[in-house]
Amino acid sequence: MSIDKLFTPENIAVVGASRTVGKIGNIILNNLIRGGFKGDIIPVNPAVSELLGLPCFPSLADYGKDIDLVVIAIPSTQVKDLIDECAKVNVKAVIVTASGYCESGPEGAVLEQELADLCQRRDIRLLGPNCLGFMNTEKSINASFAGDMPEVGGISVFSQSGALCSVMLDLAIDKHLGVAKLISVGNKANISGIDILSYLARDKQTTVIVGYLENIISGENFIKAAEDAANKKPVIILKSGTTQAGLKATVSHTGVLASADTAYGAAFKRSGVIRADTFESLFDYASALSMQPLPKGNNVFIITNAGGPGIMAADAVESAGMNVVECGAQSGSLSDPQLSLTGGSLIKVLGDIDPAGYANAVKMALGDPGVDSILVVLTPRATTKPAETAKAIAASIDGVKPILAVFMGCCNVTVSIEQLVRAGLPCYESPERAVTALKGMGEYAAWKQRPPRTVTRFKVNRRRVERILSRRQRTGMLQLGEVKGKDVLGAYGFHVPEGALASNAEEAVEIAERIGFPVAMKIVSPDIIHKSDLGGVFLNVANSEATEDTYDLMTLKISKKVPEARIHGVYVEKMAEKGLEVIIGMTRDPHFGPMLMFGLGGIFVEVMKDVTFHLAPITEQEAIQMLKSTKSYAMLQGRRGQDGVDIAAIASGLQRISQLTTDFPQILELDINPFIVGDFGSEPVVADTRMTLAPLPEQK
Amino acid sequence: MSIDKLFTPENIAVVGASRTVGKIGNIILNNLIRGGFKGDIIPVNPAVSELLGLPCFPSLADYGKDIDLVVIAIPSTQVKDLIDECAKVNVKAVIVTASGYCESGPEGAVLEQELADLCQRRDIRLLGPNCLGFMNTEKSINASFAGDMPEVGGISVFSQSGALCSVMLDLAIDKHLGVAKLISVGNKANISGIDILSYLARDKQTTVIVGYLENIISGENFIKAAEDAANKKPVIILKSGTTQAGLKATVSHTGVLASADTAYGAAFKRSGVIRADTFESLFDYASALSMQPLPKGNNVFIITNAGGPGIMAADAVESAGMNVVECGAQSGSLSDPQLSLTGGSLIKVLGDIDPAGYANAVKMALGDPGVDSILVVLTPRATTKPAETAKAIAASIDGVKPILAVFMGCCNVTVSIEQLVRAGLPCYESPERAVTALKGMGEYAAWKQRPPRTVTRFKVNRRRVERILSRRQRTGMLQLGEVKGKDVLGAYGFHVPEGALASNAEEAVEIAERIGFPVAMKIVSPDIIHKSDLGGVFLNVANSEATEDTYDLMTLKISKKVPEARIHGVYVEKMAEKGLEVIIGMTRDPHFGPMLMFGLGGIFVEVMKDVTFHLAPITEQEAIQMLKSTKSYAMLQGRRGQDGVDIAAIASGLQRISQLTTDFPQILELDINPFIVGDFGSEPVVADTRMTLAPLPEQK
Repeated sequence: MSIDKLFTPENIAVVGASRTVGKIGNIILNNLIRGGFKGDIIPVNPAVSELLGLPCFPSLADYGKDIDLVVIAIPSTQVKDLIDECAKVNVKAVIVTASGYCESGPEGAVLEQELADLCQRRDIRLLGPNCLGFMNTEKSINASFAGDMPEVGGISVFSQSGALCSVMLDLAIDKHLGVAKLISVGNKANISGIDILSYLARDKQTTVIVGYLENIISGENFIKAAEDAANKKPVIILKSGTTQAGLKATVSHTGVLASADTAYGAAFKRSGVIRADTFESLFDYASALSMQPLPKGNNVFIITNAGGPGIMAADAVESAGMNVVECGAQSGSLSDPQLSLTGGSLIKVLGDIDPAGYANAVKMALGDPGVDSILVVLTPRATTKPAETAKAIAASIDGVKPILAVFMGCCNVTVSIEQLVRAGLPCYESPERAVTALKGMGEYAAWKQRPPRTVTRFKVNRRRVERILSRRQRTGMLQLGEVKGKDVLGAYGFHVPEGALASNAEEAVEIAERIGFPVAMKIVSPDIIHKSDLGGVFLNVANSEATEDTYDLMTLKISKKVPEARIHGVYVEKMAEKGLEVIIGMTRDPHFGPMLMFGLGGIFVEVMKDVTFHLAPITEQEAIQMLKSTKSYAMLQGRRGQDGVDIAAIASGLQRISQLTTDFPQILELDINPFIVGDFGSEPVVADTRMTLAPLPEQK
Repeated sequence: MSIDKLFTPENIAVVGASRTVGKIGNIILNNLIRGGFKGDIIPVNPAVSELLGLPCFPSLADYGKDIDLVVIAIPSTQVKDLIDECAKVNVKAVIVTASGYCESGPEGAVLEQELADLCQRRDIRLLGPNCLGFMNTEKSINASFAGDMPEVGGISVFSQSGALCSVMLDLAIDKHLGVAKLISVGNKANISGIDILSYLARDKQTTVIVGYLENIISGENFIKAAEDAANKKPVIILKSGTTQAGLKATVSHTGVLASADTAYGAAFKRSGVIRADTFESLFDYASALSMQPLPKGNNVFIITNAGGPGIMAADAVESAGMNVVECGAQSGSLSDPQLSLTGGSLIKVLGDIDPAGYANAVKMALGDPGVDSILVVLTPRATTKPAETAKAIAASIDGVKPILAVFMGCCNVTVSIEQLVRAGLPCYESPERAVTALKGMGEYAAWKQRPPRTVTRFKVNRRRVERILSRRQRTGMLQLGEVKGKDVLGAYGFHVPEGALASNAEEAVEIAERIGFPVAMKIVSPDIIHKSDLGGVFLNVANSEATEDTYDLMTLKISKKVPEARIHGVYVEKMAEKGLEVIIGMTRDPHFGPMLMFGLGGIFVEVMKDVTFHLAPITEQEAIQMLKSTKSYAMLQGRRGQDGVDIAAIASGLQRISQLTTDFPQILELDINPFIVGDFGSEPVVADTRMTLAPLPEQK
C-alpha cells in the first residue's frame, strides 16, 4: 500500500489514549485535537467513555466504521495483537510510538521483525516504531508528541532521531519557517528513509526536504530516490556518525584511504543532496532555498550600512570560492549619493542610508546582468530603521535573483527578522552563515544543470573473468596476486606487459629472451603482499645472465626472509616504458557498492593522502573530474618544461574498473598500483595489481 | 598620560549636548544619565541653560572646576578649537565621535593628523575619532551612543568597527553575558588597539578580552601586547579582511606562498590569541572562557538525553581532534540505571532521565581523572525538565573541569538557557559550536603551558654580511643571486659547497680540477632568475673535457635564448651529496617582520603547497614544530625502508635564517632552494639561493 494515505487519513484513532497529563497517549490526543484535524478523532481506551471532550471507544471495532490511521501509544509487548484488530477495520497505516525494539537489544530486534512481518502480511504501513509520529500542517494533523504545530509552509522535515525532530520543530517555529510535513521515522521497520524521501519528492506541499540520518541501509535505492527528489526540489541532509565509525579490515590502498564517510559524501554528491555539516546549517540552507530562487552564477553583490560587516561578508564570499562584484557601473547609478565604492570590490552603502536607499541598491543590483545574487547586510546604528528597511527590501524581491539578508545583533532587530521572513526574505545572524547558504544554493544549481550521465560500456571478455573468479572463490583463494589480477584486467581491455611465470631460472631466461630485454622480475607467492618491501621485485634486468642470477638471488632471499612463504616462481615481464605512476582502485562499500579511487603514485597517496573517490558506475566526465579534484592534478598536466600525460587514458582505466567491479560484485577490493601512464596517445600499463574476492556464501 | 583615566573619570562633560532626540549629543547625554554615572555630568551648549534636567554650561570653563573626560559630539571641523579649551580645564581624555577624518579621504587624513598632534602636545588622550565611545559597567558609565548598558561582568569588548561594536553589545545583552568594558576605538588616531589591549590586560574587572580588528599597524608591538595580555587572560580576536588583500609583487617561492593573512595567523599563534573565524564564534569562545576553567587535556565526556545529538557531539569532538571518553568504569557508577553505554565511546543518558540523573552523571565525570571536560547535551522531549536540569547541573559546577551545555531547540528551553548562564554555565545551540569553544579553550591552555622561548644566537660573521649588503644597496643591485647569496649564508654558518666563478672555459676547468669532480655548473647573470628553466644549470659534470664543453654550450645557449642578459660567467662548484631537497626561506611582512617558511622541495611546494610559516625570531622547538606541521613530515622521517634525514639540521637552518633576517631588516625575501639534507649528523648543503634587498631610503 502506498504510504500517502498515512499522511492524509480521513479519520485517526489513538489507541492508548489517556486522561493522564504527561502520558504519550494524552499528549497525542491533545495534539490531534488542538491541531484542528477536520476528520474524526477516535480515542480508544476500554476504561473510559469520554476523553478530552470526545467519545471514547473500548476498541477499534466499536467505532463501527473503517479507520484510516491508528496511532498506537501502548507498550511494545501489546502492539502485535493490535495489528490484527487494525486489519479488521481496514486500517491503512499505523504509527507505533513505543520504544523497546531494535534500539534496545536482540530481543527488541526480534519483536521488531515480527511486527514488521505482521504489518507486511496485513498490508498495513507502519511509521516507527520508536518514533514521535508526524505532522501535516496543510491538513491540520498533529499526530505526534513532538510539540506544537509550526506555521504552514513548504519545508518538510524528517528525522531518524526523535530528539532532533523536536529540535528542528522548535527551530522552525523560532525562525518562523513554514513547514509542510514533519516526520519522525524512528526505527524504520516498515517505512524507510527512502520511502519518506520518495513521498516528499512527490508531495505537492513540500518545496524543500530537510532530513537527519544516522545510517542508510540500501545505498543504491537511496541514491535513486535522492536523485529523483533532488531533481524536483532541494534535498538537504545532515548525516551524523561521520568519524571513526566502522572502518573495516583491508589490505588495499584504496580500502585504507576510504573512510566510512567517503561513501556518503560520494553518494550525496552523485544524487544532488546538499549536505549540511552542522545542525544550524540545515535550516540556514532550508530557509534560503524555500524562499529564494537559485543563483545563475557566483557573482555576489554586497550592500551594507557599515564597513566592518561588509568586509566580513566579502571575506566569507571569497573564502567560499565566489566573487564579490561591483554593480551599476554601466547604468551610472553609482552617482547615487547614498552609494560609495570602497576596497575596489565592495559596495558600501553609507552609514545613515534610509530604507529607500537600501531598496534602490537592491533594485540596481537586480537590474545588473553582472550580479547573480545579493547579500544585504544591516547592523544596528542609532539612525537605522530595521523594520522599514526590511519592508522596503522585501518589496523589491523579484524572484529571479536570490536575495539573502544579514541583520546582525539580536535585540534591536528581532522584529524585522520576522518581517523579513514573512516577506520571503531569508535572514541570517552573521555574514558567514548567509554565505554558506548561498554557496549551497549555487552548488545545487550547478548540479541541476549537469549533463546527462552516459556510462560507456566497453567490449570485454566477461566470461573469462567469470571463470577465473569463480574458480578462485570455489577454492577459497580469495587474494588475487599480480599474475591472476593481470589476467582479469587484460580481459577487461587493460594493457598488461607481456610476461609469464617462470618456475626455475632456466625458464626465466627463456621467457626473458622471448619477450626481449630489459625485463622486470617479481616473486609470485600467495603469502607475500608487499613484494618490493621484501626484495621480491627487480626492475630493468638487462640480459640473460642477469636474469638467471636474479632468479636465484630473489628466491633465495625470500625463502630466508619468509621461510613459510609458498613460492610459485618468478613472474618475468617486459619492462614498462617510463611514465607517471598513478594508482587507480576500488573498495566496495557495504551500502553504496563499488567506490573508485584515483591518486598519484607513491608519496602522493602514502604521505599526502591526495586521493579522490567516486561511486561506480562512472561516466567519462566524472572520471576526468576525479583527476581534476586532486591537488596533484598539475602533475598530470605537466609542470615547467615537462609534458603532460594522457588524462583520457587514466579516465578510461577508471571506467573499465567501474565496469569490472559493477559486473562482478564478488570483487571486494582492487588496486592497480602503479598504473603507468605516458604521453597522449600512448597506452597506460598495469605494472602491478591485486584484488580481494568475497568468500562464497555458505551453502545451507 | 595613561589612558586609565579615560575609563574612570570623576566627571564627564558632553560638548554638543542637545535637546533634539536622535542627535548624537542627545543620545550620549541621555545614555550617561540613564547609565547612572555617580560623578558630575556636564552638558555644554551655549544655547540652553538646562538639558534633560541638568544645568547646562555655555563652555567647559564655565563649569568652574577641572574636567576629566569630555565627549565631543560636534562636527569634525570644530573639534580642534575645543582641544585648546579642554587643555585649560585640565581635561585628561576626550572622545571624538565625529566622522570626516581618515576614513573620508586625504583631507580628512590631514585633519586627523592635526588633531592627533594637538592632543599629543596638550597631553590629552583621544578615543576615536569616528567612534561610538565606551562603556564601563562597573562605574555605571555609558559614554557612548552604542545602546543600552549590558549586565556587569568580566568580558571586555573592543572594536575597530562601530557597527560591529553595536552588534557585539546586542549579542552580549541577548546572551546575558556580563560585560566589563565596551570600547569603540574608531580611527585610532591617538589610542591604538595595542593601547586598549594593554589597558584591558591590566584592568581588574576584565577577565576575557574580545576584539574585532581590521588592521594592525605595529606588528611587533601588537605581538608583545597581545602575548602579555594572553598570559593574564584569554584574548579572542576576529580579524577581518583575510582574503585577497594586498598581495605584493614577489619573486621568491616563500613570498608567493605567503598570503596577507599568513602573518596574522602566525602572530596570533605566537602571542596566544584565540582567533575567531566567524562572528558567532567570538562570543562562543568568550562565554566559555568567562565562565569555565581551562581543560587539562583533550578527553571529553558527553552526557545526553538522546542518541542523535550525542552522535553529533561525538562527531564534532573527534573532528576537532579531541577524544570522546567513557567514564565511571572504575567507580562502578555505570551500574546507575539511568546511564548506558552505546557505540563503545559514548555515554548516553536514557531519554527520560530526571534532573538529578543529569547532575549525578556530571558529578561522576568530575570525579573521574580520565575526563578533562564535560559536554552536557539536552534536547526537548515531552518529559524533559530543562529548567530543573539546568539548576541541578549548575549546582554541580566545581570550577576545576570545564562544563559546557548544549540545549538544542529554542522555544522550549529559552528560559533555562538564561538560568544556565546566570549559574555560570555557558550554553550553546548546537554541539558543533560548543565543541569549537572547547577546542579553543584547550589550545589556549596548551599555549599557556608552553615552555619558555629561548632563541639560540649562533656565532656568525655579521660584519661580512653587513659589507656585502650595504655595497649592494648602495649600487642598487638588490637581487642577490647564487654567488653573493651563498657568500652571505656562508657567513651565517651555512655549509656552502666549495666553488668559484669562472669567466671563461679555461677558468672553469681550472676550478673544477682544483675542487674535484663531479662538479655542478650554473650560469651567473643578474638578469636570469630561473636558471634551470633556461638550461643554465648542469649537474654531475664528470671531467675536464666535459667542463670545457659545458661552459661553451651553456653560455652559447643562454645568449641565444636571452640575448639581452648580462652574463657574468659560470659558477663551478662541488656537487652536493645526494639527500632530500627541502626549501627554507623568508618573506618580510610589512607589519610583522620576517616570516620563515619551510617546505619539502619540488612538487611538495609547487603543486601541493605543503608549507608552514613562522614569525622570526624562532626557537629550536618552534622550528621543529614547523617541520612537523607539514603533511610531508613523514618524508623527513623516512618511509618504508628509507632512512630519515637530520631534522635538527633543518631546524638549525631555519634558526640561522631567523637570526640573519632579524639582524638585517634590509633583506626582504630569501629562498634556500634546494637545501639538501642527508642522514643524521651530515651537514645540509645550500645548493642554490636568492635574496632580495630593500632599496636604500632616499636621501632628503
